[in-house]
Amino acid sequence: MAIQKPSNGVANGAPASAPAQPAELDASKVTITLAKELKAIPPATELKFGQVMSDHMMTVSYDPLNGWSAPEIKPYGPLSLDPASSCFQYATNVFEGMKAYIGPDGKARLFRPNKNMDRMTMSAGRVALPPFDTAELLKLIRRLVAIEQRWIPTQKGHSLYIRPTIIGTRSSLGVAASDHAMLYVICSPTGPYFASGARPVALLGIGESVRSWPGGTGGYKLALNYAPTFKPQQYAAKLGYDQCLWLLGDKITEAGAMNFFVVVRRTDGDLDVYTPPLDGTILPGVTRDSILALASAHPSRTLLPGLPETLRLHTTERELTMTELNTWAQNGSLLEAFGVGTAVIVAAVGRIGHEGKDINLPTYEGGLGPVGRALYDRISDIQEGKFEWEDWSVVCE
Amino acid sequence: MAIQKPSNGVANGAPASAPAQPAELDASKVTITLAKELKAIPPATELKFGQVMSDHMMTVSYDPLNGWSAPEIKPYGPLSLDPASSCFQYATNVFEGMKAYIGPDGKARLFRPNKNMDRMTMSAGRVALPPFDTAELLKLIRRLVAIEQRWIPTQKGHSLYIRPTIIGTRSSLGVAASDHAMLYVICSPTGPYFASGARPVALLGIGESVRSWPGGTGGYKLALNYAPTFKPQQYAAKLGYDQCLWLLGDKITEAGAMNFFVVVRRTDGDLDVYTPPLDGTILPGVTRDSILALASAHPSRTLLPGLPETLRLHTTERELTMTELNTWAQNGSLLEAFGVGTAVIVAAVGRIGHEGKDINLPTYEGGLGPVGRALYDRISDIQEGKFEWEDWSVVCE
Repeated sequence: MAIQKPSNGVANGAPASAPAQPAELDASKVTITLAKELKAIPPATELKFGQVMSDHMMTVSYDPLNGWSAPEIKPYGPLSLDPASSCFQYATNVFEGMKAYIGPDGKARLFRPNKNMDRMTMSAGRVALPPFDTAELLKLIRRLVAIEQRWIPTQKGHSLYIRPTIIGTRSSLGVAASDHAMLYVICSPTGPYFASGARPVALLGIGESVRSWPGGTGGYKLALNYAPTFKPQQYAAKLGYDQCLWLLGDKITEAGAMNFFVVVRRTDGDLDVYTPPLDGTILPGVTRDSILALASAHPSRTLLPGLPETLRLHTTERELTMTELNTWAQNGSLLEAFGVGTAVIVAAVGRIGHEGKDINLPTYEGGLGPVGRALYDRISDIQEGKFEWEDWSVVCE
Repeated sequence: MAIQKPSNGVANGAPASAPAQPAELDASKVTITLAKELKAIPPATELKFGQVMSDHMMTVSYDPLNGWSAPEIKPYGPLSLDPASSCFQYATNVFEGMKAYIGPDGKARLFRPNKNMDRMTMSAGRVALPPFDTAELLKLIRRLVAIEQRWIPTQKGHSLYIRPTIIGTRSSLGVAASDHAMLYVICSPTGPYFASGARPVALLGIGESVRSWPGGTGGYKLALNYAPTFKPQQYAAKLGYDQCLWLLGDKITEAGAMNFFVVVRRTDGDLDVYTPPLDGTILPGVTRDSILALASAHPSRTLLPGLPETLRLHTTERELTMTELNTWAQNGSLLEAFGVGTAVIVAAVGRIGHEGKDINLPTYEGGLGPVGRALYDRISDIQEGKFEWEDWSVVCE
């Protein structure tokens, strides 16, 4: 089985200069090569999610002998890779989604970037890619964002989307872990994720294609979780729905590429805010975590904009089923449903199709209901540096 | 949701020369550029699976406006791809495994290549990659194999492994199907897959990580089915096992990257040959199908080498559980277990670990038991053109 075993990093005949042990990721080694000509930045009104890339990117490579190379910030350009590379053949690919904003002080800011760094190294481990020092990667990202600051749109709902990516670059067809990797970060200025803007999205409950499964990889941010969703997504679009609501039997897992929340009226007049628990089938979303924290903080630790001080939001991570959704819709207690994620922040759900019928959610002016709106506004304000909350907003200098 | 919608191929401002409809894949358009210097071919004894690539590769690209480009056979070399490409970000990657052999007539041969072509277009469809004319792709593969004929090793157990691959090349971060693609074929001369040679492999039953599930993608040959297996594979190796035996609860699905078979003695003296059914969690393997067909043909339509004419093999596609395996092992009726696949053909299983205990299979000289050996020898003979069977062996000219 020698062929299946990744190199242990002690190659025979290694040059005398080979390091005693593989190097850690080290942001201080970065070399910066600026683009000779900078691109024209498209008008903010023309930006669509992830289509235009900024001037520069960060790349750094790993091999088992030398460890992490000196990082490079250099002009954005194509990657040159062997066709047998693990990233093509075995999908050893991990990514993250982050956003940078310009604060009122004119400085670029990231939103809870440590959460993304922690998740990224967890995800890399799940597909047996090499670990890296997350603090060093964050330093590199902050450096890149500072260089790309002119790309950060300042309009409401706009930001510079940041896509850290790790790909396996072992170039051998043997079915085994990739002991070589490339980590890179690219940036794309973006407007609102959904071109529909404030229009609530329609979801189609999908149970035949199953996005995630206990013991599967739905709890990690892996490229491989997405490819199987495109065909069902096309099917949903054909039937007039915007996104899939992923089901596991009767259980709801996620909505499109978003975590799913509902707001249900309680008999005591308070509101329940429910989302499925992190049981391995659910992505541990940074926005999901932020929504839970902020909703729980109202009204005791903060007042969310537009919500009465007398209203309590009871947040619970619990299983949600289509049967329950139907019951709540029928008895009038289902007030709001929304999807959350870095790209959308909070997206209102207007309609959920399932087994040939539609659940229609209450409609609200501007799309989001009061709870979704309050959370969207507060998170946006924190991201844009307009509201301070627990060091969630981190300045890039 | 405009951003999520793949281009319909009717771009505004498209040049007047744009085709009325996208071109189909057409092997007759191929351009061939031969390498100026040919590589030295390593001695057959030094070949390990998938590590050395031949001189040339075939590439062809798809875009929604023009369809499939003119295919190219050209020197093997790196691919240049945008870092935002779908293949990196969302794992829209499909592959196939095929082998070429030199027959006694000195001609290169492929084994049941239509099965690979059919599966490849099914797999591409599952991840919403564009369809292609499978007959045209096969023509291109045969052409490439004919050019690379000097790379086909003639030693027993050796062959030229062929890896057709399709990757999504849409360069946008929006979570949507890739409407651009690249299809390529690379070749690698190989010795036996397992360096252990004839030594039976030890499998560790893995239930916590689930390779495939109902409604998932285990029934398709997608890159994304493999990355999640590497971490469990490393765990199994650490405990002294060669490969994972993938479980879904008590049910056995696959063994490593192989389909799984057992041979069980019946009370009437015949043998049962069992493998799990194609319920969506099992790869529809070409070798799997060949094993079922050949075993069923003995003794009525052909005599498999070394097996008595009086012996009947009863093949059944049925669920297999660890509980059953334990029962059969304890009552002495479990005669053989083996994994099958293009890379290994037939690999003997010697031991299966599960819940802290080992099932030890009977041992046979040379590794494989009589049924596994008979099937291995017959399939090898068909592949190498030494035994004619139902047009399974296809000459490349």
